[in-house]
Amino acid sequence: MTSGENHVKHASNKIKVGILGTSGYGGAELLRRLARHPQVEISGIGSRQFAGQKLGACWPQFAGDFPNLCFTDADKVIENSELIFSAAPHGQATHWLKKALESGKRVIDLSADFRLSPDDYQQWYHMDHPYPELYSRSVYGLVELHREELADAELVANPGCYPTTASLALAPLAAQGLLGRDIIVSAASGVSGAGRGPSLDLHYTETNENFRAYNVAGNHRHTIEIENTLGRISTMGRKLKTHLPFERPIISFTPHLVPMTRGILASCHTRPEKAVDEAELFELYRDFYQDDLLIIVSEELPQTKAVYGSDRCIISVRFDPRSQQIIALATIDNLGKGAAGQAMQNFNLMHGFEETLGLALEGVWP
Amino acid sequence: MTSGENHVKHASNKIKVGILGTSGYGGAELLRRLARHPQVEISGIGSRQFAGQKLGACWPQFAGDFPNLCFTDADKVIENSELIFSAAPHGQATHWLKKALESGKRVIDLSADFRLSPDDYQQWYHMDHPYPELYSRSVYGLVELHREELADAELVANPGCYPTTASLALAPLAAQGLLGRDIIVSAASGVSGAGRGPSLDLHYTETNENFRAYNVAGNHRHTIEIENTLGRISTMGRKLKTHLPFERPIISFTPHLVPMTRGILASCHTRPEKAVDEAELFELYRDFYQDDLLIIVSEELPQTKAVYGSDRCIISVRFDPRSQQIIALATIDNLGKGAAGQAMQNFNLMHGFEETLGLALEGVWP
Amino acid sequence: MTSGENHVKHASNKIKVGILGTSGYGGAELLRRLARHPQVEISGIGSRQFAGQKLGACWPQFAGDFPNLCFTDADKVIENSELIFSAAPHGQATHWLKKALESGKRVIDLSADFRLSPDDYQQWYHMDHPYPELYSRSVYGLVELHREELADAELVANPGCYPTTASLALAPLAAQGLLGRDIIVSAASGVSGAGRGPSLDLHYTETNENFRAYNVAGNHRHTIEIENTLGRISTMGRKLKTHLPFERPIISFTPHLVPMTRGILASCHTRPEKAVDEAELFELYRDFYQDDLLIIVSEELPQTKAVYGSDRCIISVRFDPRSQQIIALATIDNLGKGAAGQAMQNFNLMHGFEETLGLALEGVWP
Amino acid sequence: MTSGENHVKHASNKIKVGILGTSGYGGAELLRRLARHPQVEISGIGSRQFAGQKLGACWPQFAGDFPNLCFTDADKVIENSELIFSAAPHGQATHWLKKALESGKRVIDLSADFRLSPDDYQQWYHMDHPYPELYSRSVYGLVELHREELADAELVANPGCYPTTASLALAPLAAQGLLGRDIIVSAASGVSGAGRGPSLDLHYTETNENFRAYNVAGNHRHTIEIENTLGRISTMGRKLKTHLPFERPIISFTPHLVPMTRGILASCHTRPEKAVDEAELFELYRDFYQDDLLIIVSEELPQTKAVYGSDRCIISVRFDPRSQQIIALATIDNLGKGAAGQAMQNFNLMHGFEETLGLALEGVWP
Repeated sequence: MTSGENHVKHASNKIKVGILGTSGYGGAELLRRLARHPQVEISGIGSRQFAGQKLGACWPQFAGDFPNLCFTDADKVIENSELIFSAAPHGQATHWLKKALESGKRVIDLSADFRLSPDDYQQWYHMDHPYPELYSRSVYGLVELHREELADAELVANPGCYPTTASLALAPLAAQGLLGRDIIVSAASGVSGAGRGPSLDLHYTETNENFRAYNVAGNHRHTIEIENTLGRISTMGRKLKTHLPFERPIISFTPHLVPMTRGILASCHTRPEKAVDEAELFELYRDFYQDDLLIIVSEELPQTKAVYGSDRCIISVRFDPRSQQIIALATIDNLGKGAAGQAMQNFNLMHGFEETLGLALEGVWP
Repeated sequence: MTSGENHVKHASNKIKVGILGTSGYGGAELLRRLARHPQVEISGIGSRQFAGQKLGACWPQFAGDFPNLCFTDADKVIENSELIFSAAPHGQATHWLKKALESGKRVIDLSADFRLSPDDYQQWYHMDHPYPELYSRSVYGLVELHREELADAELVANPGCYPTTASLALAPLAAQGLLGRDIIVSAASGVSGAGRGPSLDLHYTETNENFRAYNVAGNHRHTIEIENTLGRISTMGRKLKTHLPFERPIISFTPHLVPMTRGILASCHTRPEKAVDEAELFELYRDFYQDDLLIIVSEELPQTKAVYGSDRCIISVRFDPRSQQIIALATIDNLGKGAAGQAMQNFNLMHGFEETLGLALEGVWP
Repeated sequence: MTSGENHVKHASNKIKVGILGTSGYGGAELLRRLARHPQVEISGIGSRQFAGQKLGACWPQFAGDFPNLCFTDADKVIENSELIFSAAPHGQATHWLKKALESGKRVIDLSADFRLSPDDYQQWYHMDHPYPELYSRSVYGLVELHREELADAELVANPGCYPTTASLALAPLAAQGLLGRDIIVSAASGVSGAGRGPSLDLHYTETNENFRAYNVAGNHRHTIEIENTLGRISTMGRKLKTHLPFERPIISFTPHLVPMTRGILASCHTRPEKAVDEAELFELYRDFYQDDLLIIVSEELPQTKAVYGSDRCIISVRFDPRSQQIIALATIDNLGKGAAGQAMQNFNLMHGFEETLGLALEGVWP
Repeated sequence: MTSGENHVKHASNKIKVGILGTSGYGGAELLRRLARHPQVEISGIGSRQFAGQKLGACWPQFAGDFPNLCFTDADKVIENSELIFSAAPHGQATHWLKKALESGKRVIDLSADFRLSPDDYQQWYHMDHPYPELYSRSVYGLVELHREELADAELVANPGCYPTTASLALAPLAAQGLLGRDIIVSAASGVSGAGRGPSLDLHYTETNENFRAYNVAGNHRHTIEIENTLGRISTMGRKLKTHLPFERPIISFTPHLVPMTRGILASCHTRPEKAVDEAELFELYRDFYQDDLLIIVSEELPQTKAVYGSDRCIISVRFDPRSQQIIALATIDNLGKGAAGQAMQNFNLMHGFEETLGLALEGVWP
């Protein structure tokens, strides 16, 4: 059997799972999903800032849950766990993840540390990659495109939120050779994508009733992740391998900040070389994602609220005969499919569980 | 089995459950909870407006779910179901609920139709109660206070959102004789409490960045529900019976509208006749709710976000020695514990399931 | 005299100004500006819906103002006024505006009725233009580009909110021949752009925490207005004439709805044929707008909050050397420079007043 | 002539006005109002953090204004000015204000430093008052109640935002002896009341979609200000003197935080000893405020949006015959009438200008 993805493992012994960086939003959302996963035992939650304190000291939404669960240091989390999720910011947990891998634990890293080759990492994150040898053992965890190589992964690099959205929106076009010379990705995110650390920029009164672009003109680090995925598809087709060579396109990526808590919408424009019509595009998209439970190809334009608190991605596509542009649109919850949800999807895949086990399907509407 | 086992279904004989009024927010939230309940089969969804259309035509968050589920008329929902939830507005479904009860189905009504005696109903809703004889067979579904009589109920009157919040905040004080001459309930709700029907008052641009009181000075219909529950507790103590006689106090209830989607917070003030201290109050509250899984007594002041999308109630209490006022505060999600969550809690109780099965515990934070 | 002299009135002969469509947001914002204009007397406010009622019945923000001002029918407004603003939706006031013009009054129309040639109007608004002969007498009121011909205008077609934003963002590029083959305008608006009429789509709970695209793929009526202005500039340069012939480009315009009340941001992408650098672009923009008091060319990226309640436009520009794209960004308050503010600017220009008289300069921050 | 309040001074020489604490919201709102005041010259803006930088470095809404205005240190602001506004937090500018007063400048302090007697200051702010002798020279700047003594004031203590709202709501009742044994003030504020300093509590994602009480049970420092004003009215009637003796009542004040930027609503409950009816109450309120241009007594319930960006206060009142409670409700913009607007009103009064000169009357709606 090549992959366990369609088989529910009825484990009598639950998997011991630890989380690093549990005081960030990604960590909290992992914990909420793990708490309802029937095959999981929470074996440790790490946080430098809250070490020694109870879960409730950090997170009001867990009031009354896990009354005996305390934050510990990373060593203890790793020691007690079979699999480690890291939701710490990039550059902060690589040392621990190396230790975890060395002691035979599997790792799912939600940060950017293992998403890029050491060269790209240096260029976009302005620091040398600390463990280039680990990069070569990692698998890029964009599930729908890398599913085959993820089942046996020991180290998963969980994709960024914008790259998940834009890549899923454009993947069928890339596979079909429909990307034109210019690829314009205009995307907008709720504020939780920027994390929990307070700053003047994200202070309530400065952000409420305020819409703005940021990191314009090729400055956002997620640009290269999107380019990598589109390049891999153009080179390899549907089933991607993280470490095979590929040629990559250049995109223009313009992110915006929306005065809302959650949600990303990417509106992607490209002008294909050959003529298309909208019905063909829908057929293409439906075929491409026919086996993907978390991808909804919808005739309705996607809206972020439909995936609030959900781990799905909703995609639609249009063709504008006047300007000859294809407009591909996708939405996810940046903390769901854009972070914790996709990490859990990877977790399920790595253990042969049903891919949606413990995940949230329907969005919290209204 | 915990409430989290939302995707593994073991039962061979699931309960056939239908929903009336599925095009409103209460209906949608019931459906979202029922979809992950392991002992339930959705046997019908009713909506006059959407009859004949697919679920997705009404609700973007269910995109891709239940692809074959269509709205039907109420008769068909009732015919195919063993238990009927009604999320239709008051006065609109009583006829169908009567038919359901006559054919031996159990009913959980989220509207106000069976919450009040026919006299009170006439006074507060300005219409004659259509079926006074059914009222006498109903049980008031405020679970923590009526649990004993709910297990065998055939017709449950699910409480209003404000009454749930304020009653749970004040219940321990009522039980202990600590309610003073004046009881001031100042409460505030997110906008979803007003339903899905568009109106100028609730148009986005008129409501955003706007905080206002409404139905001030004894005009809100939920006033009498709160008075009933406090009166029953003062008369009967902890375990309430819907149809025993009781004396009721008068409260001053001032509701406010908050520019947010979900959540209610009640801040209740009363000046007890006898001296109290805050530590005693916390002991009283913790004892009172010690067996209630969905009630969290917290030293931290409650905040609505902690129960966003959750079916819990978080309560805290303070004593102000300067003004001699007790301030009791509680928060719920008006669509969770204030509507669909409590209805599901009633459902579980009526079938002997674990009370939190299919419910949402942790809030969606941030 | 500065724009701030809002309470000291010197003129003995004020201009009698009437408003049609005063029960919409554009009308209310006109009234707020006219109330502080030292050279204006409000001579009538029209509203079909509120005719005979006092101003306060419609608008809470005017509580206590103009205690004797009542809504009347359009005939009376026109009869008593020297100049008529119309803030009624397109297609609803043309009949009255014709009458006003015939009796020698000047007109500023905030609707789309006189913005397009009869042919374009028919194509984009799907109705025959009722008075093609009036179109030929109108001037397109995008002040910074049409200033010369506006001073003597008898009928001003006040531009749409998106066209104002995108045209001002791209005008210097058009003038310099820097627009490439593809012009992608991705823009986002607060909800007030959709007017005051309640609908499910714009109900608070459906719109809050929701970001979405709409009218994707060439369907939005503002597309043609942007194309007209860019075409005129490419043909005529800096000083535009509404009725001279021109060639127009095709753009791809994708509007989005932001969960906020006010504000538009346009992020425009184009890839010029010739090489540019960012410093040159800034010089170009500063030169182009050097005499325009309401246009701020800013090195900081524009954000909508900076123009909340203001009549200014803030513009910035970037060049991405990787993708060779110029990204031009502009923000306005859709009810300010995007509607009532620009209409007032036109009014001042038509009467030889200082252009910013009665306008709001600084945004209401936070 | 006893007071200059009704006479517009046509100064040929504008008053030189400086602001300390200009990098906070109060300072920015002062600057916006001063910029449009015809009798004012901005002579200096102070900020420790931004000293030496241009205005635009701190405030995006002033982009393009005062291109040569730089932040300086406090000494320079004082030296160049005839009147000093201080918008610095309490305890931070008293030293400078003393120097300003000593050199004969007039001072309007928006902080709490001169609002309370040294004893009360010590008790509520937990620090010794640095200059008790200055307190005795200060006037409490709640304009409508202290107008007579404000005209000649050299040091004005501008009231807090909650005290302004609650005091104006309850003043007519206090004057008429209608305050009962218990006075419950439940109030809610937009987030800008907490200032511009970022913190986890006020981070966008933690505050959005979150309603909560804070400083419950007599802990909020504004409590004593409200009690002082109600006590003064009960003792002195309509025209208050800051330094006459008075008896004060005790109130129960419960503030809440609303997920919005601006606005305060106070809902005040008290049960009078003698019977009242609602019509009498409205007559009482209208008489009490008949000469106050910024107070609107409205039959409609007040809503914060109606005063967004405005310097008015809207008040309404109800009587609940069931509970015998009077409910008095008032709304202001916390940065308008609750801070900068009232400070400007004081400024006008102190110089014999029209009281509303430079102020904002109509709210920014929507």
